Amino acid sequence: MKISGTHYRTIWPTGTGSVRVIDQSRLPFEFTTVDLRTLDEAARAIGTMVVRGAPLIGATAAYGLALAVRSDPSDECIERASQALKATRPTAYNLAWALTRMRSTLASVPLPERADAAFREAARLCDENVEQCRSIGTHGLALIRETAGPHGRRLNILTHCNAGWLACVDFGTALAPVYLAHDAGIPIHVWVDETRPRNQGASLTAFELGAHGVPHTVIADNLGGHLMQRRQVDLVLVGSDRTTSTGDVCNKIGTYLKALAARDNDVPFYVALPMSTIDWSLADGSEIPIEERSPAELTHVTGKTASGRLDTVRVVPDASEALNVAFDVTPARLVTGLITERGVCPASRAGLLRLYPDQGATL
Amino acid sequence: MKISGTHYRTIWPTGTGSVRVIDQSRLPFEFTTVDLRTLDEAARAIGTMVVRGAPLIGATAAYGLALAVRSDPSDECIERASQALKATRPTAYNLAWALTRMRSTLASVPLPERADAAFREAARLCDENVEQCRSIGTHGLALIRETAGPHGRRLNILTHCNAGWLACVDFGTALAPVYLAHDAGIPIHVWVDETRPRNQGASLTAFELGAHGVPHTVIADNLGGHLMQRRQVDLVLVGSDRTTSTGDVCNKIGTYLKALAARDNDVPFYVALPMSTIDWSLADGSEIPIEERSPAELTHVTGKTASGRLDTVRVVPDASEALNVAFDVTPARLVTGLITERGVCPASRAGLLRLYPDQGATL
Repeated sequence: MKISGTHYRTIWPTGTGSVRVIDQSRLPFEFTTVDLRTLDEAARAIGTMVVRGAPLIGATAAYGLALAVRSDPSDECIERASQALKATRPTAYNLAWALTRMRSTLASVPLPERADAAFREAARLCDENVEQCRSIGTHGLALIRETAGPHGRRLNILTHCNAGWLACVDFGTALAPVYLAHDAGIPIHVWVDETRPRNQGASLTAFELGAHGVPHTVIADNLGGHLMQRRQVDLVLVGSDRTTSTGDVCNKIGTYLKALAARDNDVPFYVALPMSTIDWSLADGSEIPIEERSPAELTHVTGKTASGRLDTVRVVPDASEALNVAFDVTPARLVTGLITERGVCPASRAGLLRLYPDQGATL
Repeated sequence: MKISGTHYRTIWPTGTGSVRVIDQSRLPFEFTTVDLRTLDEAARAIGTMVVRGAPLIGATAAYGLALAVRSDPSDECIERASQALKATRPTAYNLAWALTRMRSTLASVPLPERADAAFREAARLCDENVEQCRSIGTHGLALIRETAGPHGRRLNILTHCNAGWLACVDFGTALAPVYLAHDAGIPIHVWVDETRPRNQGASLTAFELGAHGVPHTVIADNLGGHLMQRRQVDLVLVGSDRTTSTGDVCNKIGTYLKALAARDNDVPFYVALPMSTIDWSLADGSEIPIEERSPAELTHVTGKTASGRLDTVRVVPDASEALNVAFDVTPARLVTGLITERGVCPASRAGLLRLYPDQGATL
């Protein structure tokens, strides 16, 4: 996507051996990049959410492994590096998926060629993610056209957290159809959940949509139900960090509440995801490991002061406890459909197997 | 309730003709009071949420009218002052209720005696609210005892916004039973929704519970559904700003989402309210006027900096729109019961009329 006229991906190798990422912890007020030079730097970038979003976590892990392999291509190093990267964030399945794929590719490569092979495979994984997101966009666009109908009335789409290009390598999952629809001239407006406690909606989704010129309104996470009651939401579109083989969807905390409201008000609730997010080994969302993060992400808020600096303020009494759970599970029964790079399907085992018949044997 | 050993109400007349309130916009980090000397100051205190919470809004309006009457006891002044106070906040029914009651009392009082009568009536209204909250506490305590069962296991109660003593004159509505249960030795823990955008949970409920020694944990508004899925919530207790004669409940934005989650997970969802919150003229929650407030309450967050000052930071991109709707309606079908000063009843016309048979004639 473009920032001030320049095309960016969220992650790319530099000419000097490092991997460059956009520092998402400084957005929306500062657009800066960070160079990752080592495995440790890559792991820290994922853990501290300099990069975030399931597909981008997978891409960063792939490059992190490549950085590790360059300094030591041994099987032991690959094993250790994989463990270190996998431990950074427990929920997003793309992390494990990307590492498994990297290791499987490297296993048959002679040691002296492993570094090159690793960087090539990481680049390929990124390119594939871009194409997957483009396909998700196309399938989602058809859905938006259908919802909009022939009269071209303005469509109100609600989204939670950030499942845009910043969460991926480019384009996005839930936001890919939004960009395509906007570019196709379909009048569209996005309700952006601010997405406490880390405010990825207010800081990242609003930033993305604004940069692309898509009309949008930031709202408290509390507002979506009321908007649906008042028929001001036509469609909910969110991403997924892990999807079970039965169509249960694990996404940013609070997604489940929006799914309940959508169901209560007959608003279609769609989840967009590349196949790297599907954990075929799980049949129930309650088995998904749910990340708990530092309470400081809830008790403290960072933003821009009147003088233009970034500063952090505490919003909870000093003596109060706080709990910060990062994801929740939306059961398949509340999901109208899944939008993948292969098309739209019901959130069910049968639905997923129709699109991914090759996975039938693994179940 | 006590702050550092001193008993406070949220509003009281001073010896010098002004009315003193706790400045709730500075909590939890600064405990200060403000003196209201005129109608305008009272109206501004309500509008800017120096005072907030349906019962306290009513009490402040009553004193605001008394301040107006002291400078001009004419019918015209009372009419103008009522309109000005009523325009400050549209949703909380206690505001209209308190003004109607004040006007009805003053109508038969000779002009020279009106000021004294107005202050007396405002004080009586406050005392009654204290007694109502005490009764709500007693009825809610019985409910908590029942839910806790004989084994005294720790009970997890989730609350949204602030319906504690700071929202009333003393004790609170939803939190009154919590205080009584804690004082009675029932092991209790409260999940405190931070309640974006104004953070009344994080700043006021957490402050109150902490000052009283009630164990509590501040959580993002997004978390409650997940906690219910994981069976970590035994009971939801919230307040109401306006209740219809059919039991629909209008409360702080986001309440509806918690009610949906409670229903989806078989968690009892109770609403505590004094009768001054019941709008007998309405039969459907969709008729309740819903307040929209400044987007700045969402785009900017105030808290304590590392150096201990209060400061405000912007958390939304400068170019993004924001919408700030303050309340939503939870339909009666999602409410397990209403806790009023007269007891607990189903959220229905029949349930309310059982407790308030005298209102039957008005319906």
